[in-house]
Amino acid sequence: MNFKIIFRVLGFLLFVEGVAMLLALFISLLYQGYDSTAFIISSGINLSLGGTIILLTRKVRPDIGRHEGYIIVSLVWVVFSLFGCLPYIISGAIPDFTNAFFETISGFTTTGSSVLTDIESLPHGILFWRSISQWLGGMGIIVLSLAILPVFGIGGMQLFMAEVPGPTPDRISPRIRQTAKTLWGIYLIFTVAEILLLWVAGMGVFDAVCHSFTTMATGGFSTRQASIAHWSSPAIQYIIIVFMILAGTNFTLSFMAIKGRFARVIKDEEFKYYILFILIFTAVIFIGLLVSSHLKVEQAFRDSLFQVVSIITTTGFATADYLTWKPVLYMLIFSLFFFGGSAGSTGGGIKIMRIVLLLKNSYYELRRMVHPQAIIPVKFNNTSVDSKIITNVLAFFMFYFAIFAASSVIFSIIEPDMESAMGAVATSLGNIGPGLGNVGPSETFVHIKPIGKWFLSFLMLLGRLELFTVLVLFSPSFWRE
Amino acid sequence: MNFKIIFRVLGFLLFVEGVAMLLALFISLLYQGYDSTAFIISSGINLSLGGTIILLTRKVRPDIGRHEGYIIVSLVWVVFSLFGCLPYIISGAIPDFTNAFFETISGFTTTGSSVLTDIESLPHGILFWRSISQWLGGMGIIVLSLAILPVFGIGGMQLFMAEVPGPTPDRISPRIRQTAKTLWGIYLIFTVAEILLLWVAGMGVFDAVCHSFTTMATGGFSTRQASIAHWSSPAIQYIIIVFMILAGTNFTLSFMAIKGRFARVIKDEEFKYYILFILIFTAVIFIGLLVSSHLKVEQAFRDSLFQVVSIITTTGFATADYLTWKPVLYMLIFSLFFFGGSAGSTGGGIKIMRIVLLLKNSYYELRRMVHPQAIIPVKFNNTSVDSKIITNVLAFFMFYFAIFAASSVIFSIIEPDMESAMGAVATSLGNIGPGLGNVGPSETFVHIKPIGKWFLSFLMLLGRLELFTVLVLFSPSFWRE
Repeated sequence: MNFKIIFRVLGFLLFVEGVAMLLALFISLLYQGYDSTAFIISSGINLSLGGTIILLTRKVRPDIGRHEGYIIVSLVWVVFSLFGCLPYIISGAIPDFTNAFFETISGFTTTGSSVLTDIESLPHGILFWRSISQWLGGMGIIVLSLAILPVFGIGGMQLFMAEVPGPTPDRISPRIRQTAKTLWGIYLIFTVAEILLLWVAGMGVFDAVCHSFTTMATGGFSTRQASIAHWSSPAIQYIIIVFMILAGTNFTLSFMAIKGRFARVIKDEEFKYYILFILIFTAVIFIGLLVSSHLKVEQAFRDSLFQVVSIITTTGFATADYLTWKPVLYMLIFSLFFFGGSAGSTGGGIKIMRIVLLLKNSYYELRRMVHPQAIIPVKFNNTSVDSKIITNVLAFFMFYFAIFAASSVIFSIIEPDMESAMGAVATSLGNIGPGLGNVGPSETFVHIKPIGKWFLSFLMLLGRLELFTVLVLFSPSFWRE
Repeated sequence: MNFKIIFRVLGFLLFVEGVAMLLALFISLLYQGYDSTAFIISSGINLSLGGTIILLTRKVRPDIGRHEGYIIVSLVWVVFSLFGCLPYIISGAIPDFTNAFFETISGFTTTGSSVLTDIESLPHGILFWRSISQWLGGMGIIVLSLAILPVFGIGGMQLFMAEVPGPTPDRISPRIRQTAKTLWGIYLIFTVAEILLLWVAGMGVFDAVCHSFTTMATGGFSTRQASIAHWSSPAIQYIIIVFMILAGTNFTLSFMAIKGRFARVIKDEEFKYYILFILIFTAVIFIGLLVSSHLKVEQAFRDSLFQVVSIITTTGFATADYLTWKPVLYMLIFSLFFFGGSAGSTGGGIKIMRIVLLLKNSYYELRRMVHPQAIIPVKFNNTSVDSKIITNVLAFFMFYFAIFAASSVIFSIIEPDMESAMGAVATSLGNIGPGLGNVGPSETFVHIKPIGKWFLSFLMLLGRLELFTVLVLFSPSFWRE
């Protein structure tokens, strides 16, 4: 194991985090908030520590193998969150360490669950830091899911990325760098576009920047306690819907669309099902709201579409509290907790591709039963899917449900109400944000006991890193050689 | 499609049902209940209709292929339930057709959910008919899961049954008959043994017979409104625990044990995990009850063991209402709703073998990730499991969860309380009996709207027939040729 390179990469990333803190410092100075000192100290710590590590390790061989990769990826989010909570603590915005860590990891994992009960009272620097933590988390996920994981052969991501080479663990850096740059370019373009549109639609510049950051990351942190419900403007809500959908789409597809290869986008099966799921759930909830509430038609449509898109993409913004809807409607929303965005998007959860592969495999099994001698492979985008990928997806799904079930049981010791416990666990594991019951869209996570917050923080990390990346570290065979 | 043979088999089974009704008539006459006339009429209808069909179809070719098999299996439980509810309706014990059908299919599918609110007021014939309907259902399941399904190659059942030949769809009858006879022999021996032991332990003969019938079927109908809690005798409760465990064990293993091949039984992986799951859940709940209640040690142990065994085997008897326990404890019980008995037992649910295969596959996937070039198949009972079986188990699991989730959402229209909805759906699909909330162990299903009862009845059937047997009928390729 090349521990030194792990150390070096983490040092480099701490430095990057320090630079992001400088941006927050700039905002803080601009608005003359009380948080400037906090950002000077925090960025000072990050930049000097990161810089020192980089200098100390400059002669280290740049070999990052499979083992090092797993450890780096798992550690990045933890280290980022440990240092990222400094501004909250030092400024006094969130004085308690557990709460500050929870808020930070909820940011970097693009979850969006919050402990804040009076967001509007916070200085601009802190609000900006919350938003940029999600934006950075989103960047991390894009490079992880589309550049690093396919090289490691994890999660069936290689399936729709014919461009990505097979596992060549010893020299992955150049390839990753190139892919990452392209995708980050798109991420940046979309973010800027959303800022402009929100601003044109009437949102203030600061709010537009923060919300664009957290939309593209499918994060869901808002600068307002009421989330997007703060703006009653349909235009603003529709703009955010569009960008949530984009953020939940595979960024490789967006890249193709930008290059004009629309045919490939439209043919993409995951994209088709993603849109289909959104349409079906929206239609059913829309009809349900029309029947069971006094909302006007357009508002009922917008409320259903917004909430469906927000949850399926795992963003977590709210324009309505689904818990005030009829049980069947919020049960529909809760079932969306187990979908998640497309693979290769910033969305979390199980992911549309996995759901579709599993549903297809189940459906094909019925055919196999009628024709037991025939070999009927699962097809995806007109290609037969290797049984290895099906097995991998199965393993993922089983882990996901086992972890969900076991964690819900454990969490019901802390939150002795089945709905709240299941909601908190599902929303953390799926990196969504709001849950059910005591942690619904109109509530916060502040009342949860410290041990519960640490538990949920771990689930956010686990979910964000596609389970395997973390779980593999607990596998004896990982450490054996 | 050989429709005539389907007709003939159903006629034969109606005749068998008529004979079972004669037994109930005998009990009714013995105790001089008001239900004698009902049994005379019902058995008359069944025997004459069944007899007529048998006579009319006596020249039909006895070829039962794959297609005919699926249809027969799915129809048997429906036809049995349609005619089996006659005694309830005619006697006036359950005058309403929907309620009577629900009670009957809950019996034949060995579920045990009931609409009865004053069981003790019913005549003996009716009580006996309830119990024997479960016992017959259990017989049906044994022959289905150990003789018919393996021949069809369904559900990975062939995995641990090396004795069973591969799919030879055209002449399956002789083989089935032989296997069925052996297994029914064991079923009968266990039933008689339990009757004797319960009687020795102080239960009345009639109650002993009825409870032995419903224990061995993992059915859970009781002759008392309070279920087994009616008998405070620890001996009676422990006897029932032992026989529930036996009923939830693969009957092929019991056959081997009877033949003295204990080594094979002890080595069996499914059996090991089955016992392990029971021990772990019992231990945790036992400790939980000691900490959170004022129960004495032995009673806390017995209550936890009984409830765990009752739910994991999908029997559904109760000696305590787990809903009165701490949330974490009843969440543990609820997670057992998704385990189920061993494959080849009378238990329903997902089944231990599938759970173990899925967990193993997930665990092995972590190893595959560390060693991507190595081929690491899942092993079960020291044999590599064919990837076809893993895919089949995956398909089953996915269907199970998709049906559970979709049905819970739909059912929350009828029962607008998330816990009750999920509980009712999970208990019906898993053929357990009691659920959560409004359908907990101390409640009945009588208050559920008729449409809800039909919905749950369908779920019972679906779960009982291992999903595929029913779902395949909805597959276009089934009807294409």
